[in-house]
Amino acid sequence: MMDRNAPVGVFDSGIGGLTVAREIIRQMPEERIVYFGDTARLPYGSKSQDTIVRYSRQIIRFLMTKEVKAIVIACNTASAYALDVVEKEYDIPVLGVINAGAHTAVQATRNGKIGVIGTEGTIGSGIYTKVMKQMRPDIEVTGKSCPLFVPLVEEGLLHDSVTDEIASRYLSTLKGRFIDTLVLGCTHYPLIRSTLGRLMGNDVTLVNPAYETAIELKTLLEKRQMTCLTDREGQEKYQFYVSDLAEKFTAFATSILPVEAKETRKINIEEY
Amino acid sequence: MMDRNAPVGVFDSGIGGLTVAREIIRQMPEERIVYFGDTARLPYGSKSQDTIVRYSRQIIRFLMTKEVKAIVIACNTASAYALDVVEKEYDIPVLGVINAGAHTAVQATRNGKIGVIGTEGTIGSGIYTKVMKQMRPDIEVTGKSCPLFVPLVEEGLLHDSVTDEIASRYLSTLKGRFIDTLVLGCTHYPLIRSTLGRLMGNDVTLVNPAYETAIELKTLLEKRQMTCLTDREGQEKYQFYVSDLAEKFTAFATSILPVEAKETRKINIEEY
Repeated sequence: MMDRNAPVGVFDSGIGGLTVAREIIRQMPEERIVYFGDTARLPYGSKSQDTIVRYSRQIIRFLMTKEVKAIVIACNTASAYALDVVEKEYDIPVLGVINAGAHTAVQATRNGKIGVIGTEGTIGSGIYTKVMKQMRPDIEVTGKSCPLFVPLVEEGLLHDSVTDEIASRYLSTLKGRFIDTLVLGCTHYPLIRSTLGRLMGNDVTLVNPAYETAIELKTLLEKRQMTCLTDREGQEKYQFYVSDLAEKFTAFATSILPVEAKETRKINIEEY
Repeated sequence: MMDRNAPVGVFDSGIGGLTVAREIIRQMPEERIVYFGDTARLPYGSKSQDTIVRYSRQIIRFLMTKEVKAIVIACNTASAYALDVVEKEYDIPVLGVINAGAHTAVQATRNGKIGVIGTEGTIGSGIYTKVMKQMRPDIEVTGKSCPLFVPLVEEGLLHDSVTDEIASRYLSTLKGRFIDTLVLGCTHYPLIRSTLGRLMGNDVTLVNPAYETAIELKTLLEKRQMTCLTDREGQEKYQFYVSDLAEKFTAFATSILPVEAKETRKINIEEY
């Protein structure tokens, strides 16, 4: 029997998945989380499916050693490439960030035109288009990869003229398609949400899959009676692991999360 | 006995080291090269010393299976972090890109003020300052990390207003220090050399360690009577290996090198 007080495993290539962890903490403050950021091998967005599947399997094997009760792949690229493969390999539920975001976008659009922005890997996989067309075949989806957003966010240029200029170039294609709904298809992008919202205008609904995924997780845990029964405070409630640069990660996590990241431990993920 | 017709091994985190391979091909057209680009784990510039040493050892073990006669670490970050450690572990010569560039800069400066630009890893290591001060203690070195240059180059924005704007911000510190010599301390940077030269002005000498390192290799091979005796043409003269995305690499290599990259093979570097 699964221990319902066990933690939820959350992973990403680096810091982006913290926007998903943030939503889980906000919506399910009693849940424990084990977070892994693959900072030694980031970014994932420009790498191939083979590589991403291999990395995801190693990370899941590591998270299983922490006896997690469910896993959230808090990275769009890994969700696009690896979810279908890995969800069959384990007994516990494995969630990606794509389904929930796609579902919300299909419900939000009024004119049937949806835009998706993400890394080269996510957009190149065509996963959002495929999933949304399964939900509603007449939907028109325009994908646009935005490879510079992740380095700009990691450089801290969240409110900057250069980010404005690059965003305005990337988004011009989508504006020309008259989309009324835009999916932020990379977990870094909620951190430049205000810039994206301003450039797209008030008539365009921004969908944040991080928020939607936390809701999906909550619904799933409640349905299976797997929610935490005790609210354990203390340093072990949120555990952070990375494959490199633990201190830098701790600082970033504390700036993004509503709780303080007390410590981040570095592990050699290639051993798993 | 070492076979003097054996290839030279050259490695980098990805495509940047091709600027070094380019100079070796130009200056020693008879030499064979085995190039490895660690595209599954790039970039190196923001990772820790432990990680970079582990990655470099795996790559050298792979290159040794190709029976190389010498190895060039065509990456400033790996040269900064790993050269001192790995050069002692192998019988063949291992060269980094830092010594040659530092030496040329110290000889080129007239006012004793040198600037160095590179990744966070290279600049944070202080390696250029250390090496140049050993050569000439009264030299004044100002380092500046430029984390966005690599993604901008990889996005193809070699001649672009955004690259101009970012470069102008990064270089302003160095201009304020009245440097007369600037070391391009990352193997990607020669690809935006014209932008850097224009912003710094005609009075500042740009030093390209890729060029200087090829000269150092040539001198070393000649001194040890290890230069190739036969000029073997054919597909095996230049061999390219990567850890991910072989086709994308082939296209990039062909655009940078004076020869056509016929084929790139993908290997699992974690097995070495």
